[in-house]
Amino acid sequence: MSCETLNSALLPHLEGVEKDQICVVADKCLIRHPMWTGAQAPHEWPVLWLEVTEENKSLDTVSRIWDFLFEHAITRHGLLICIGGGALTDMGGFAAATYKRGMNYINVPTTLLAMIDASSGGKTGINYRGIKNSIGAFAVPRATVLCPEWLTTLSPQQFLSGFAEMLKTGLIDSSALWNSLLQYDLDKMDTTSLFPLIADCMAVKQRIVAHDPQENGMRKVLNFGHTFGHALERKMQVPHGYAVLYGMIAELYLSVTRLNCPRELLQQLTRLMLQYYGKPACKCSDRDQLLALMRQDKKNEHAVDINCTLLQAVGAPLINQSIGSSDANEALDYLFSL
Amino acid sequence: MSCETLNSALLPHLEGVEKDQICVVADKCLIRHPMWTGAQAPHEWPVLWLEVTEENKSLDTVSRIWDFLFEHAITRHGLLICIGGGALTDMGGFAAATYKRGMNYINVPTTLLAMIDASSGGKTGINYRGIKNSIGAFAVPRATVLCPEWLTTLSPQQFLSGFAEMLKTGLIDSSALWNSLLQYDLDKMDTTSLFPLIADCMAVKQRIVAHDPQENGMRKVLNFGHTFGHALERKMQVPHGYAVLYGMIAELYLSVTRLNCPRELLQQLTRLMLQYYGKPACKCSDRDQLLALMRQDKKNEHAVDINCTLLQAVGAPLINQSIGSSDANEALDYLFSL
Repeated sequence: MSCETLNSALLPHLEGVEKDQICVVADKCLIRHPMWTGAQAPHEWPVLWLEVTEENKSLDTVSRIWDFLFEHAITRHGLLICIGGGALTDMGGFAAATYKRGMNYINVPTTLLAMIDASSGGKTGINYRGIKNSIGAFAVPRATVLCPEWLTTLSPQQFLSGFAEMLKTGLIDSSALWNSLLQYDLDKMDTTSLFPLIADCMAVKQRIVAHDPQENGMRKVLNFGHTFGHALERKMQVPHGYAVLYGMIAELYLSVTRLNCPRELLQQLTRLMLQYYGKPACKCSDRDQLLALMRQDKKNEHAVDINCTLLQAVGAPLINQSIGSSDANEALDYLFSL
Repeated sequence: MSCETLNSALLPHLEGVEKDQICVVADKCLIRHPMWTGAQAPHEWPVLWLEVTEENKSLDTVSRIWDFLFEHAITRHGLLICIGGGALTDMGGFAAATYKRGMNYINVPTTLLAMIDASSGGKTGINYRGIKNSIGAFAVPRATVLCPEWLTTLSPQQFLSGFAEMLKTGLIDSSALWNSLLQYDLDKMDTTSLFPLIADCMAVKQRIVAHDPQENGMRKVLNFGHTFGHALERKMQVPHGYAVLYGMIAELYLSVTRLNCPRELLQQLTRLMLQYYGKPACKCSDRDQLLALMRQDKKNEHAVDINCTLLQAVGAPLINQSIGSSDANEALDYLFSL
């Protein structure tokens, strides 16, 4: 499960696409990465390098991708290769999903977070009116190409952000996966021993998504930690995975108090937080704003509810748990008291 | 097949949607239409009135629809009702297809053209960089609600524009439908006798679309007249149906010369053009520009080809006919010589 070169990893997925109908959109910070500058990198395709931040995960940037595709006379039978983190693959996927009513695309996730979370499953989109991923489309990529070589250049913060989504996958899937993740040595951050666990997490996600591609039901188990997480992410400007970890602690607290989920899980996750992630930079006076943000979440079925996925135990998630304001406040109080 | 009131026509399609989760987007020119001002009109829902032209069939207008949905706290389980002509239902459908990654929508087409063409089949989109419908998505409406009452206020030009798409449907479908359409009295433009023919044409379209929702093959028969038509529409700024009628004449000419399609069809269609639609306001010196526009068409599989649907006979269309420059020029010469 390693790519010798980016070219050889992509090759099996290019069948039936004409050479002049392939374009690449990539994160500018990768422009000097050995995977790209190496002799076997795919230099023959036009590349649009984008500076990617949550702020420019926007309609303007998607327009730039559309313009790039028009400039290269790409037809709807062409192929867009998206190389970067989750914000880039989300935008590239949305541009592809809407260019001439939909063209094929391939994701090459370069961060751990994107490998685990954004690059498979077909959720594409942009931030709009300050609301994360509020405009978008479901469009499954033709392939997601995993190369461990990208991970060697990640910062510890990027690494931990991705690892939080792996922890989420473990919690909703099984004790086996959860315990393997707890045993992984986060002090070393070794990518070789991590890669089989990445593959396990991707397999869990793909199995869930295959059953419910458009998130009408079961797929919502993947949202564990994300209702509180998205609100915390907007308030604190922390990496997505950090926000999800904090969100999981709030939602595990509710799982313990409301569904008798074993308290041990909350303790294990809290220990990981304190040792590696640090406490969230929020205080009790932020609660009202966080609640308002949670009410805007597109996961909600009704405008006034807060909808969560909670856990009865490891591997036993319950979707569509409706949360009232006092419960939400209590969970935030617990999180901020740590 | 007539609606007593707009309310009663919509009611069967609102099941399972909460009252405060319904919004309407409608063409401003309908604001005084009896279907809307009547006592039984659906006054309780928020309405966004839009001035609709091909020029503002744009991303900006779609953003206004998204903003309107956010302002009314619509979740992705809400419903958008789109009331207007094809440009409005195309934009409303695209806004719905991408709002929170997709919400339901209903089309209420108010022009003949929209009833026949845009309002069913799931093609949504906007014009971008001057190219018609070049950004969009496939998203099938929950329902398309037909009310003949809208047709009474159409101008003769709007009527003829829609009738051209009916003629196209007849040509690709069967001698029976084609002959019924030829027998319809265009001098009177009576809507009562037209309505069964509208229903026939919608049934033809829905049968074709059901076999190939994303236009990978068979659905392309619906594009008859549209390769030349779209280019002529951009060059001349005529109503869509007029451009399609001119496009059908060019493509019927090629059908006759290349596929031995009976010349009688070309003569019948030419007669209708001269009697009701008038000659196209183009000249031979426009040919190069028209060819360039045809090469940009998103129907093309390769960047340099011009891809057409041609006819072997009534009801016997052939998709993916590749056209060279000299053939295209010859067809345009024929059209401009009439």
